[in-house]
Amino acid sequence: MYDLVVKGGRIATAADLYEADIAVRGGRIVAIGEDLGRGERTIDARGRLITPGGIDAHAHIEQISSTGVWTADDWFTATRSAACGGTTVVVPFAAQHKGDSLTAVVADYHARATPKACIDYAFHLIVSDPRPEILADELPQLIRAGYPSFKIYLTYDALKLNDREVLDVYAVARREGAFVMVHAENHDAIAWLAQKLLAAGHKAPKFHGVSRPQAVEREATHRAITLAELVDQPILIVHVSGAEAFEQIRWAQQRGLKIYAETCPQYLFLSAEDLDQPGIEGAKCMCSPPPREKANQPAVWRAIAAGVAQIVSSDHAPYRFGDADGKQKALQDFKKVPNGVPGLELRLPLLFSEGVGKGRIDIHQFVAVTSTNPARLYGLSPKKGSIAVGADADLVLWDPNKQVTVRHEMLHDAMDYTPYEGMELTGWPVETLCRGVTVAKDMEFVGEAGFGQFHKRGLTDLARPAGRFPTGFNPQDGSYRG
Amino acid sequence: MYDLVVKGGRIATAADLYEADIAVRGGRIVAIGEDLGRGERTIDARGRLITPGGIDAHAHIEQISSTGVWTADDWFTATRSAACGGTTVVVPFAAQHKGDSLTAVVADYHARATPKACIDYAFHLIVSDPRPEILADELPQLIRAGYPSFKIYLTYDALKLNDREVLDVYAVARREGAFVMVHAENHDAIAWLAQKLLAAGHKAPKFHGVSRPQAVEREATHRAITLAELVDQPILIVHVSGAEAFEQIRWAQQRGLKIYAETCPQYLFLSAEDLDQPGIEGAKCMCSPPPREKANQPAVWRAIAAGVAQIVSSDHAPYRFGDADGKQKALQDFKKVPNGVPGLELRLPLLFSEGVGKGRIDIHQFVAVTSTNPARLYGLSPKKGSIAVGADADLVLWDPNKQVTVRHEMLHDAMDYTPYEGMELTGWPVETLCRGVTVAKDMEFVGEAGFGQFHKRGLTDLARPAGRFPTGFNPQDGSYRG
Amino acid sequence: MYDLVVKGGRIATAADLYEADIAVRGGRIVAIGEDLGRGERTIDARGRLITPGGIDAHAHIEQISSTGVWTADDWFTATRSAACGGTTVVVPFAAQHKGDSLTAVVADYHARATPKACIDYAFHLIVSDPRPEILADELPQLIRAGYPSFKIYLTYDALKLNDREVLDVYAVARREGAFVMVHAENHDAIAWLAQKLLAAGHKAPKFHGVSRPQAVEREATHRAITLAELVDQPILIVHVSGAEAFEQIRWAQQRGLKIYAETCPQYLFLSAEDLDQPGIEGAKCMCSPPPREKANQPAVWRAIAAGVAQIVSSDHAPYRFGDADGKQKALQDFKKVPNGVPGLELRLPLLFSEGVGKGRIDIHQFVAVTSTNPARLYGLSPKKGSIAVGADADLVLWDPNKQVTVRHEMLHDAMDYTPYEGMELTGWPVETLCRGVTVAKDMEFVGEAGFGQFHKRGLTDLARPAGRFPTGFNPQDGSYRG
Amino acid sequence: MYDLVVKGGRIATAADLYEADIAVRGGRIVAIGEDLGRGERTIDARGRLITPGGIDAHAHIEQISSTGVWTADDWFTATRSAACGGTTVVVPFAAQHKGDSLTAVVADYHARATPKACIDYAFHLIVSDPRPEILADELPQLIRAGYPSFKIYLTYDALKLNDREVLDVYAVARREGAFVMVHAENHDAIAWLAQKLLAAGHKAPKFHGVSRPQAVEREATHRAITLAELVDQPILIVHVSGAEAFEQIRWAQQRGLKIYAETCPQYLFLSAEDLDQPGIEGAKCMCSPPPREKANQPAVWRAIAAGVAQIVSSDHAPYRFGDADGKQKALQDFKKVPNGVPGLELRLPLLFSEGVGKGRIDIHQFVAVTSTNPARLYGLSPKKGSIAVGADADLVLWDPNKQVTVRHEMLHDAMDYTPYEGMELTGWPVETLCRGVTVAKDMEFVGEAGFGQFHKRGLTDLARPAGRFPTGFNPQDGSYRG
Repeated sequence: MYDLVVKGGRIATAADLYEADIAVRGGRIVAIGEDLGRGERTIDARGRLITPGGIDAHAHIEQISSTGVWTADDWFTATRSAACGGTTVVVPFAAQHKGDSLTAVVADYHARATPKACIDYAFHLIVSDPRPEILADELPQLIRAGYPSFKIYLTYDALKLNDREVLDVYAVARREGAFVMVHAENHDAIAWLAQKLLAAGHKAPKFHGVSRPQAVEREATHRAITLAELVDQPILIVHVSGAEAFEQIRWAQQRGLKIYAETCPQYLFLSAEDLDQPGIEGAKCMCSPPPREKANQPAVWRAIAAGVAQIVSSDHAPYRFGDADGKQKALQDFKKVPNGVPGLELRLPLLFSEGVGKGRIDIHQFVAVTSTNPARLYGLSPKKGSIAVGADADLVLWDPNKQVTVRHEMLHDAMDYTPYEGMELTGWPVETLCRGVTVAKDMEFVGEAGFGQFHKRGLTDLARPAGRFPTGFNPQDGSYRG
Repeated sequence: MYDLVVKGGRIATAADLYEADIAVRGGRIVAIGEDLGRGERTIDARGRLITPGGIDAHAHIEQISSTGVWTADDWFTATRSAACGGTTVVVPFAAQHKGDSLTAVVADYHARATPKACIDYAFHLIVSDPRPEILADELPQLIRAGYPSFKIYLTYDALKLNDREVLDVYAVARREGAFVMVHAENHDAIAWLAQKLLAAGHKAPKFHGVSRPQAVEREATHRAITLAELVDQPILIVHVSGAEAFEQIRWAQQRGLKIYAETCPQYLFLSAEDLDQPGIEGAKCMCSPPPREKANQPAVWRAIAAGVAQIVSSDHAPYRFGDADGKQKALQDFKKVPNGVPGLELRLPLLFSEGVGKGRIDIHQFVAVTSTNPARLYGLSPKKGSIAVGADADLVLWDPNKQVTVRHEMLHDAMDYTPYEGMELTGWPVETLCRGVTVAKDMEFVGEAGFGQFHKRGLTDLARPAGRFPTGFNPQDGSYRG
Repeated sequence: MYDLVVKGGRIATAADLYEADIAVRGGRIVAIGEDLGRGERTIDARGRLITPGGIDAHAHIEQISSTGVWTADDWFTATRSAACGGTTVVVPFAAQHKGDSLTAVVADYHARATPKACIDYAFHLIVSDPRPEILADELPQLIRAGYPSFKIYLTYDALKLNDREVLDVYAVARREGAFVMVHAENHDAIAWLAQKLLAAGHKAPKFHGVSRPQAVEREATHRAITLAELVDQPILIVHVSGAEAFEQIRWAQQRGLKIYAETCPQYLFLSAEDLDQPGIEGAKCMCSPPPREKANQPAVWRAIAAGVAQIVSSDHAPYRFGDADGKQKALQDFKKVPNGVPGLELRLPLLFSEGVGKGRIDIHQFVAVTSTNPARLYGLSPKKGSIAVGADADLVLWDPNKQVTVRHEMLHDAMDYTPYEGMELTGWPVETLCRGVTVAKDMEFVGEAGFGQFHKRGLTDLARPAGRFPTGFNPQDGSYRG
Repeated sequence: MYDLVVKGGRIATAADLYEADIAVRGGRIVAIGEDLGRGERTIDARGRLITPGGIDAHAHIEQISSTGVWTADDWFTATRSAACGGTTVVVPFAAQHKGDSLTAVVADYHARATPKACIDYAFHLIVSDPRPEILADELPQLIRAGYPSFKIYLTYDALKLNDREVLDVYAVARREGAFVMVHAENHDAIAWLAQKLLAAGHKAPKFHGVSRPQAVEREATHRAITLAELVDQPILIVHVSGAEAFEQIRWAQQRGLKIYAETCPQYLFLSAEDLDQPGIEGAKCMCSPPPREKANQPAVWRAIAAGVAQIVSSDHAPYRFGDADGKQKALQDFKKVPNGVPGLELRLPLLFSEGVGKGRIDIHQFVAVTSTNPARLYGLSPKKGSIAVGADADLVLWDPNKQVTVRHEMLHDAMDYTPYEGMELTGWPVETLCRGVTVAKDMEFVGEAGFGQFHKRGLTDLARPAGRFPTGFNPQDGSYRG
């Protein structure tokens, strides 16, 4: 007898849409079929749409910001919130600061996550100090130990790498088969503009956006791609916000480079107008890159629909509006404000309602960008990212017709606001199962701290280099073919 | 007890790759799971890769060419050959000639197919005479009767529509929710160049290619897209051969238009060099559009890999080399030669070996472009196009390591040559099941004439118009929003 | 002694800007220098800017429209008006209708022009009936007789050529070294949209614009370019109105094709809003292609500034607003209205004030696009198009600071309106000399009918083909280089 | 009576081509006319083509390279050589090193030039140390004192600015109306690749090219443009070598940005093959950016012909092949070799013969890119850059049919080789006049050291910013328009 049978739901994967029962044993899907009978536990899913559990591959949890502030959410509230929004796996960052041992950083993050995680997880590394011993020893060891992806920054004083360091990091990634994520904004340009803005007395939240125009994102994207081309290393540009950066990415893709892209709900639903509100209200929507003008939003949808962006993540980076060291910092000036918006819980409902519901993407694209693609790109497949025999029973049951008006009080994070307050959504994840266990139901959390498991990840074909060098010189092995 | 259990294979779909048993009852997949036991019949698929049966959505079978010659294959040899190559569904054309009743044409094609088809099938229509009664009555009735896709031509004297007729046809398609396929080459330019070539004594097969340069395909592609934009009608450009036409298609896609594209093995594996052989040998590779220069092939691969082309079909159009009214016509001049190459049987093996095997595309893309995408675009989903509960048990078992040197004598069509003679391939479809019945095994046909069933097709979301008009004028309902 | 010395003006050419005297003898410039003394006649040009006389290379004068109406201006009023606006040469069309002998057409136009022309002129041909004897005999003879440029149409029932005819015409042009101008709009699409619009009751002038969206201009531009590419023939796209067509032209230019472009003031200063006025007022701004949305105007300026468009002409096509067979036809429906706007007199003042005055182009670009480039492209150099020794003394003296509010009553054409009524301009051509004779002064005409001379034109290097064929096949001589 | 009359030549300017006499007094052109009589001195120029004296706006003369070596040419040999090649004005660099006072640098360069210059000259500055006092005081003062253009580097350890410094320099330029030239290559990427190459034992000259692929030029070009866009500052990218960088420049130009480009003969006539010769022979063609593959050359021609590149300079940077501290350094490794090729003398003959003579550009384009455009962009107009009344009598008399085989021994520099050895050219500058004085004749130098005059330059309209900021924020005055 099965541990669990989910009966009669309509199953959607990145490829298929069909009705069937799902049978679970030991947390794994062991059969999908017509009329599989009953299990120890049986869920009646008739009328429900079932998608794979969401994978949120970009989140900051119990991390300290570059302005020295801890995120509002800890591992418990973050993963509780994610679960209630249909997400069953988070892949936040273990963030190195200058001087840190990467290994020690990873141990720290594990220590925080283990007792509190309510859903499954893995870690990307953040490499901010690629000194020789890190590149030679720690990073390769961690890649092989299950952390085969890491993010680098082209901006932020505390985090940014120069172009030479970027090449060094890419080269290690290439040698080890790992994957590099890039935060692409031109640091100098932002710092210079911000200084000029503040000097001219422009301190309000909206000037955060003015200090980071699309051009600085576009430039850094072009640069990150060019450096990747030189060493033949696949990369992913995270949180792409604007049409101009997407133009660079598409240009690279059509030339056959392995350049991937992620975008986030804030670039689909927020805009420069949201930053430009009375008082410091706009601080609620401050993140980097900033939301662009409204006219830019269709270009982001098109990037998703056309496959230019493969992933939609939340970039959850929660800082409370009411906290003195949170968004209230905007009372001083925009540079003081910790960057980020919350998004773990609403990512899937927003994309489902406004994407699938309004015909901008289809259900297969929805599943792909929220679950299957991150699983494949980051080495969580085939355990995670789809509904298939052998995979973990990470399932989301949707009531596709449920009408919900977004209110922060119904969310499960530790924040005091949501930037999406008041939006009217259609369709909601009414039950979330992680490894066959219901962790959220009817908009309430029913899981428990410590249930979540860490997943060691392996290498992925999608990060395999193409084997082409623009000059015929392979800097990895020193060979030259003129 | 199940009718059939396929045990222990590695199942690949457009989204997933996993090991499981597949249980079949009544020709349909009723369960996929671990250790499903044995059926009436059990196939040991350990070590095999299992993909969905191929869908070849572009083939000419028992059709008369524009030069008045019947295709060499009839329904029996064509579908036998397809089956041996891993294809379980063909969607050839029911081709109207000027003056024909479409309904009568469809009846004729059914009469030919019914007794001989060895695998399942459907029909696209070819609309060459869109006179008022066809547009008003027959075409809408046929769309609703299960023929919701049709091809139009911008070239060939006997088939081509002028731009006004194209708009009329698009408008009917939009109103009915149907899908239009376009053969996009500029007729006048080809006719003019051919006349000049022949007048100058250039009669050899290679001048077929000279008379149809990439520019004429690019132009007609741009035009077909523009006309589609005006009426907001999704279309698919068939057999796209070159980088220049793909550039137009990508440009349209990135502007958010629903423009799809198909390409064919001949543009991946043949080239202008193959047309330029001693004597009339080049006639074996004559098709329209013609194979391009070798340097163009990577652009076609990139179009597939980047999702610019959604479908790879064969455009099977078989004319024997030795027949007086076949390729021997090349002894006269290139304009006399019936256009087309055979491809039903080798489409999948070629793409598997050279695409998946050589890392140009992954297994999911292979499944998508050869089966899942045509099923979704042409309304065969969810019965066809994937391996999922509820779908027909159309399965291909691959020996991924089998080495095969292509020889025409091992193929099962009625031809006397293959343009791919001598290619060394790795991986072969060693068993093909259509609705749970083995129709080909170990490179031999084991099915029977008349087994194939016709499939009525429904409308598909992918052909749903976007609802946007460049001028604000909706020519369908006459409304204007300035 | 010189016949005339123009003293102390500031001379602007496409290359230079300097102060000097200009000495004239026999209607020609014989010296430019410092302090050349006085002539029979001396003009004090201190404080004046002097540019070469304007060349308006696109105008319809005493021509019958495709709706059967004669232009409001005859040769006298047209050239009088041109002279007052600083233009000293017009190159209107000698327009063949189906069945006409080209030679006879040319004779007719000469008969009308000779007694009335107030400034110099030449003729482009319009070839609407390229039947064999025209292509074989008349056209080559006329090219050699001084008419080495002709316009063809891709739209208008009475004028349009099909693609094959376009190729035939291009081929003759190539053989003879002549230049082809193309009116590029897709006829079928316009006819189809117009029919649907009228059927839906949309008859107002603004629907003229709706029936000819940018997409139909873009498509025909792409097609005209492609056909030119096949036969390696330089062409010029006339009256380019929109960013989309310019994108095609730029794409061709950067590939090294000899594709030129002309635009007109109506695309810089009028917009779709002007077509959308109460009653039939919008008919005053109806021309083809139509003025586009306001947001398109900067793209047209950029095309001029970046050299993508080489010529700014008026496309003067005058039909009175008050005439029953003129713009009043709009009371019936937009398809009945003769297309065109007047522009001979205001072309230069508009471009000077809004272009040079507002820094969008510099004075050299102004001279180039209004005089030097048309002279060079159409074979009027070196007699016309610049201020240089040996050239005709066609000079315009500008008061660069004169403020003028445009009113139709101050113009000198036979019209009853100007679409630019009320515009405030800075800078005005206060004296116009043609061959050293003042023909307009202080906004009044002081020349005389019959003064204007016809100019036979020769071939020009800019129309010389590049010698490249996309396929290696030269359809002119039948040679093939694979 | 005139000092000099040049009689009967065919005068070519950027706009005109005509026959006339040129009369000179006091070194200036005072009249151009038919039959101006004879002067104190009379030159019979019948059969000669006369162009404005060449302006070579990019040269390194008596400058110390970044590898610490002085250029082989001093002011005497450099300007002697230039004169013999038809150049009458050079604008080399006054190069600041870190710590230098700019003013002192300028004085040094003047001290070297004054006694030795044989033709006229001006100086661009090189700003390598934009410390506050330089930006606040010295640079603005020098701009106003006649040095309104300066070059910055994105590469070379000793010279490169970071992005923030680039913005600071741009901002000063914008405030003062000055013009910025950018050497655009990504420093880190080059350094990283070079290190890897040397570590792998790849030391030959050809690896110079491998270490600086087109991608690093393209990237830095994109970056330089983006930074310019942020502060609305016109810039010129110097010595653009490849199609990829030109693509970025064209993209910027078509968006309306004031981005200009220069290219050099080495990118038209040399290629990667020239770097890849036996022994260290390739060192003769080493410059930065390096010559690209042969297939790239047509793109450079097209950039000139289409106006994407406005200037063709020599980037004369002469290091002898036989000198131990010159190209012989290649015996060690490519990084040790001083970068640069000579070009002052052959720039015009090469471009005339292969450009004008072979129909790739016309004579007006030739004059524009070699003389008129640099004069206008760098503030030498109207004294220099054209043949017009009031301008200096800088004239080059060409024998357009003279056949010359290039041999280094016929050149007049202090080098021991030319990279163009053996080229067969048609057309040669047989007499060069600077301010009416013949300085070179019949391939021999006839001028004298110290004759050359320094020209203070003024601001130019072409460097005037557009007044547009991507974000609405003007960092110069602190204003914001949202």
